[in-house]
Amino acid sequence: MTKEASSSPSNLAQKPNPYEPHPSDFVSNVGNFQLIDSTLREGEQFANAFFSHEKKIEIAKALDSFGVDYIELTSPVASEQSRKDCEAICKLGLKAKILTHIRCHMDDARVAVETGVDGVDVVIGTSKFLMEHSHGKDMNYIAKSAVEVIEFVKSKGIEIRFSSEDSFRSNLVDLLNIYKTVDKIGVNRIGIADTVGCANPRQVYELVRTLNNVVSCDIECHFHDDTGCAIPNAYCALEAGAKLIDVCVLGIGERNGIVPLGGLMARMIVAAPEYVKSKYKLHKLRDLELLVADAVEVNIPFNNPITGFCAFTHKAGIHAKAILANPSTYEILDPHDFGMKRYIHFANRLTGWNAIKARVDQLNLNLTDAEIKEVTNKIKEMGDIRPLSIDDVDSIIKKFHADVTTPKLKSKRGEITLTTEDDLDLTSTQGPDTKRSKH
Amino acid sequence: MTKEASSSPSNLAQKPNPYEPHPSDFVSNVGNFQLIDSTLREGEQFANAFFSHEKKIEIAKALDSFGVDYIELTSPVASEQSRKDCEAICKLGLKAKILTHIRCHMDDARVAVETGVDGVDVVIGTSKFLMEHSHGKDMNYIAKSAVEVIEFVKSKGIEIRFSSEDSFRSNLVDLLNIYKTVDKIGVNRIGIADTVGCANPRQVYELVRTLNNVVSCDIECHFHDDTGCAIPNAYCALEAGAKLIDVCVLGIGERNGIVPLGGLMARMIVAAPEYVKSKYKLHKLRDLELLVADAVEVNIPFNNPITGFCAFTHKAGIHAKAILANPSTYEILDPHDFGMKRYIHFANRLTGWNAIKARVDQLNLNLTDAEIKEVTNKIKEMGDIRPLSIDDVDSIIKKFHADVTTPKLKSKRGEITLTTEDDLDLTSTQGPDTKRSKH
Repeated sequence: MTKEASSSPSNLAQKPNPYEPHPSDFVSNVGNFQLIDSTLREGEQFANAFFSHEKKIEIAKALDSFGVDYIELTSPVASEQSRKDCEAICKLGLKAKILTHIRCHMDDARVAVETGVDGVDVVIGTSKFLMEHSHGKDMNYIAKSAVEVIEFVKSKGIEIRFSSEDSFRSNLVDLLNIYKTVDKIGVNRIGIADTVGCANPRQVYELVRTLNNVVSCDIECHFHDDTGCAIPNAYCALEAGAKLIDVCVLGIGERNGIVPLGGLMARMIVAAPEYVKSKYKLHKLRDLELLVADAVEVNIPFNNPITGFCAFTHKAGIHAKAILANPSTYEILDPHDFGMKRYIHFANRLTGWNAIKARVDQLNLNLTDAEIKEVTNKIKEMGDIRPLSIDDVDSIIKKFHADVTTPKLKSKRGEITLTTEDDLDLTSTQGPDTKRSKH
Repeated sequence: MTKEASSSPSNLAQKPNPYEPHPSDFVSNVGNFQLIDSTLREGEQFANAFFSHEKKIEIAKALDSFGVDYIELTSPVASEQSRKDCEAICKLGLKAKILTHIRCHMDDARVAVETGVDGVDVVIGTSKFLMEHSHGKDMNYIAKSAVEVIEFVKSKGIEIRFSSEDSFRSNLVDLLNIYKTVDKIGVNRIGIADTVGCANPRQVYELVRTLNNVVSCDIECHFHDDTGCAIPNAYCALEAGAKLIDVCVLGIGERNGIVPLGGLMARMIVAAPEYVKSKYKLHKLRDLELLVADAVEVNIPFNNPITGFCAFTHKAGIHAKAILANPSTYEILDPHDFGMKRYIHFANRLTGWNAIKARVDQLNLNLTDAEIKEVTNKIKEMGDIRPLSIDDVDSIIKKFHADVTTPKLKSKRGEITLTTEDDLDLTSTQGPDTKRSKH
């Protein structure tokens, strides 16, 4: 758990990079983390998910190709097909290590170790709620089962993780006791899980920092997103010394899901750009998200980090002006890192003359600054009346240009009427992609 | 800025509520915050936004009815119609205070104070990037303009906020100097803005905590969501003593937007349930989101906090079992607080016999636990083969029930074939709402 902060500066930021791990965070793994993708386990618990055998294989290959470190699969005891899927994915020879996720019980463990997985993730509820209403066992029973399962799995020569469930509503002393016990007998990782999505970032930092002083094994974290904190909770856990983060493509999982792979990449590339860019194939993110979105029949959310249709669209005049001078003014992410493009939205009433000037240049027309300001006012007036398409704006600019460059019409400058615009296609108004359709 | 933490316990948590502000956070405003809704300003900068005059009025009324404290509007100098919209909304007599958002310049201020607003929000870029590439002014110039504009607006008897832009990439000493200056001359609020979405929660906490020691006025925060941290950044800012948070319905704004109103409500109801429930009309959230989603032609994201179609859907067998015993086991939010419903997804291969038992009870059938376990296995087998609808499962249960309760068929128990299921409607498989359609 040593700090390996990216020392190379981002091309988006000053030197030294102000977003890299803070020197005081000597335990930080922000520049040295690993991903456990759980799209084929937690993601299978998403309401819309039904993955066929072939689809699971396709998703596993795509995850491996993106570069995730681990792929976690549904328990082989969930159903007969779940077991077959697990065995088949183990035989694919992927670079990513394959894990399966089971209850902390020997019945499950005996089946899991025969599937060919590289490791087993066991979990048991440790909150008062879960001890009372789910399995009905006390901490002594939990510790006893944990030791039995861990020693059995270790005897098979594969990795073993022990996780509590609903860790943030569990008794801290109970948690520290059980983690200390399993650490002593050589578990590879301990996991903490915000199963209900209640944790907040500073609380996460404190718990992980405390745990980090108690155990010597790696710490894995699993955060649900019910209250919108999953990504920053993951970030703060890494700051406090956690090493592995559970993610799903688009965050799909129980309820509204867990840490989304893409959103975490957005967070981490800001903090550790060289590490993230060298380790993960970021250009494959969009296709990976489309593959999973298609499989579970959802759209990419309009506001999705990185791949949402407007993630790199700049609209206000003041923003557009500065972005044209230097993209770093209003962008912390570079769209090109993800194979995406920047878009300046100039066809609206908030537009400014710098954005229009850029468009005039793109159209290869010649207008003075005074003329561009004049045509910008025309565009803003029209933008007050109705949504504008790029074609609308181009027509206004071209007509204006024709007027000011044709001697006989020069007296009419500033009196352009737009009688033909009503027939223009307005569907291209809204930027680089269509609205209300699958991206 | 005194702490007014909710002292009443949540019905979802133990007493005392473990999610309320930590006693060490004596500066915390987690239980005493205000909302500045910027759907009609920041939201108008969203790529898809074109709000007609009538739509702006409708949205302003809906925001007021929800209970936001302030409504921020586009600058009256953006366009002629923007000025008219602003004047009209000021005349509605809403409970919410009306603000407009302008550049830190007397030309804008003179127009703004004549619109009838209750306050003016001024902003100027203070980062190296913006000073160089946007307005080209230095800190002395910024301070001079700020003082002139603030004293002018104050002389008109209305509220004035001064905000830096891109605060997290600005020089800390410059920031503290300018904030100290404007605080001294009686600004009502200072604002800090993560304009590019680069800030992380602990960084936010530290900056706000520092600022809180320097100024005596209220602190307002504006967080973009490019790296998925907007909601928790807002939360940590409140923990550190900020008082007001800028939000938009669905978070719409430049690029992928800012703190979403609904997501922040999810976060805050966990921390300060009585404050949030008494102050905001949470049952109106869904309609408010649908109104804005419709206006800007986007779908509610599938994973939206609270109103996403699966936000309260439980699927895995182990989750369903515990939820049936006590919803708090796997829910930190109570769907009924928002006029929503819980849904147990039992028609899939991950189902457990407790979920099926609950369904058998709903169908008013009588089966022993052993029989329920037997029919659960039938359902899991079928769930391995294809997605199941509720009708599928009900048919399996009913046929099984008929077999075990009809004497002549008793010997056939466990050998049910499902020849008729292929014709069943599968569209209702996926829970409480349709998929890939507008919610």
